[in-house]
Amino acid sequence: MSEYRQDPLSRRWVIIGGERGGRPNEFVEAATRASDISCPFCAGHEAETPPPIASYSSNGKGKWLVRVVPNKFPAVTTETGVSSPGCLQQPASPDGSEVFGDGTRSVPTSMPGVFGHGTGSVPTTMPGFGSHEVIIESPRHVASLSDLTDAEAQAVFAAYRDRLLKLKAEGAYRYVQIFKNVGPAAGASLEHVHSQLVALPGVPEVIEQELKSCGEFFQQHKRSLLLDMLERETAAGDRMVRETEHFVAFCPYASRFGYEVWIAPRQHQPRYEDVRASELGELAGLARDIIGRIERAVGQASYNYFLHTQPFDMPAYDHYHWHIEIIPRLTKVAGFEWGTGCFINPYPPEAAAEHLRSLGERL
Amino acid sequence: MSEYRQDPLSRRWVIIGGERGGRPNEFVEAATRASDISCPFCAGHEAETPPPIASYSSNGKGKWLVRVVPNKFPAVTTETGVSSPGCLQQPASPDGSEVFGDGTRSVPTSMPGVFGHGTGSVPTTMPGFGSHEVIIESPRHVASLSDLTDAEAQAVFAAYRDRLLKLKAEGAYRYVQIFKNVGPAAGASLEHVHSQLVALPGVPEVIEQELKSCGEFFQQHKRSLLLDMLERETAAGDRMVRETEHFVAFCPYASRFGYEVWIAPRQHQPRYEDVRASELGELAGLARDIIGRIERAVGQASYNYFLHTQPFDMPAYDHYHWHIEIIPRLTKVAGFEWGTGCFINPYPPEAAAEHLRSLGERL
Repeated sequence: MSEYRQDPLSRRWVIIGGERGGRPNEFVEAATRASDISCPFCAGHEAETPPPIASYSSNGKGKWLVRVVPNKFPAVTTETGVSSPGCLQQPASPDGSEVFGDGTRSVPTSMPGVFGHGTGSVPTTMPGFGSHEVIIESPRHVASLSDLTDAEAQAVFAAYRDRLLKLKAEGAYRYVQIFKNVGPAAGASLEHVHSQLVALPGVPEVIEQELKSCGEFFQQHKRSLLLDMLERETAAGDRMVRETEHFVAFCPYASRFGYEVWIAPRQHQPRYEDVRASELGELAGLARDIIGRIERAVGQASYNYFLHTQPFDMPAYDHYHWHIEIIPRLTKVAGFEWGTGCFINPYPPEAAAEHLRSLGERL
Repeated sequence: MSEYRQDPLSRRWVIIGGERGGRPNEFVEAATRASDISCPFCAGHEAETPPPIASYSSNGKGKWLVRVVPNKFPAVTTETGVSSPGCLQQPASPDGSEVFGDGTRSVPTSMPGVFGHGTGSVPTTMPGFGSHEVIIESPRHVASLSDLTDAEAQAVFAAYRDRLLKLKAEGAYRYVQIFKNVGPAAGASLEHVHSQLVALPGVPEVIEQELKSCGEFFQQHKRSLLLDMLERETAAGDRMVRETEHFVAFCPYASRFGYEVWIAPRQHQPRYEDVRASELGELAGLARDIIGRIERAVGQASYNYFLHTQPFDMPAYDHYHWHIEIIPRLTKVAGFEWGTGCFINPYPPEAAAEHLRSLGERL
């Protein structure tokens, strides 16, 4: 069973242990599987994964295109002894105290700020409650979002929405992190195209900071920070990659990574799960196109992407705006970045955007 | 010339461009050089680096053990047109405004919080002013701190102190980030053992957060957060790796990475540059021993370490405490971590510490 812990100095949260744990020799990277013969995500190997939570097929019938299954090696689990809905408001230990490491010192706390920076003057711990799922994005043994068919890609973005809606309805989680790892440098241990989601009992630090920035901007300017950014980017144009009817893809002004691209809706929309069904195909097509362009620009790069959306237990905000951040893993993150939190990006986003624009859509 | 930029949403700072920039094909990792024949850091190749800023030899005479040279491919430079001392207090643009990207909108600001999270409601930019140096740690072609002789290791930790003192005296910088990248997974592009430092005009986000945590803890408890942590770790023992007369090495409670180890002085000391000359050998020996143990525990791991110390332009605080964070790069940082800021560490620090203790000092 895993455990959430907060570092008192940095106030970072970590997930320690869990079923991914093991002895050091298990750190050796799992070899990627080059064919579908031994791949548990390929069609015909459905029995090698836990039973699906959801499944998508063309027009709702026939063979599956996309399957959602529990992660066999979850970082967090629902089996922690913490009753689900209570873990949001209640402290992790039964007597209302929080326990430091070996349990020698406990400080009563109401723990409202799990994952937040709260008052955080002593270390905080709680059981590793959560849900860790895998979205298998094709029955075929392909690796990247850009390899999907239109129907598969659309089902992926529908699955994201549907899982958010279902997990929200369960009432046990405050945030669901949806993310994708492609390629060994991006931390993928299986080659077969997939995304993951982790449903969390708290709001992660990065989202908390975004909510704070957006809230402060709204107070000052009475408008959404992201919409303000999108308008400026559209007007300037030099960091824009592609605009579609409802979405925009651009290289952010302060890109951490070369060829970093963000995708966001053009209209105010704080929660991804509110995306219209009629727009899912357009979004999937744009994401697929952008990743295809990055791959043509820099070769078969490893990449991650992740969705940032409003936490569940808040009214729909005027100031927040969901978006997807795509980060190609072309350079290694080194001691300077870990030490400072400041990234060195040798490749200006204006140059990256120009290159990506010049490639155009693949016919 | 590079540029500092702040992302308005995350409030992260990045360094864009600089002499490391280039076309995408330059992202290909420099092959590590297996021998000293082509290595610019080896003895006999001194002419291949810029002239040294400092040099250390045994008892101050004879051949060099450690050399400090300017980085040939700096992320930041002193040649930005910004007069040095002024860049701390003055805005980056001459008219007192800050410029967003293409310069279409400028908002007057006094920019006191460069690198801080300040009010940060609009993107901020400033020229990439700073100093980027390399500390070459041996004339021999070896890779890790654990490969150094006693004299070389001691000279390295003396060089860190001396460079901090000199750069502080220059008056142009607020913080100096000292860090080491060893192995390809840790971002090292040259194999020959070396550290780097980047002198910055602002206080990095990570340090700002540490100062905040320590300041708040001090207000509440009238003592240093780090000293409190060290006392608890010493008492508990299960995360302790080794104690020497003046220093402690332990696996932090909320370790982000498997086999993460922090080294800190046992007595209150906010600034690394105040470390006593008589203790440098002890510190160097402990750091070398700990890294040797990690390498024996998990194989020739890639690793980073970085020094966190108090910024220059503050009185010596009662609440801050310098320390070194060693992070082995055994697992990849993936989409979940980038999306949330929360790390998944499969290997509990208690188990890592037990393993490292069991290895003992190499005779």
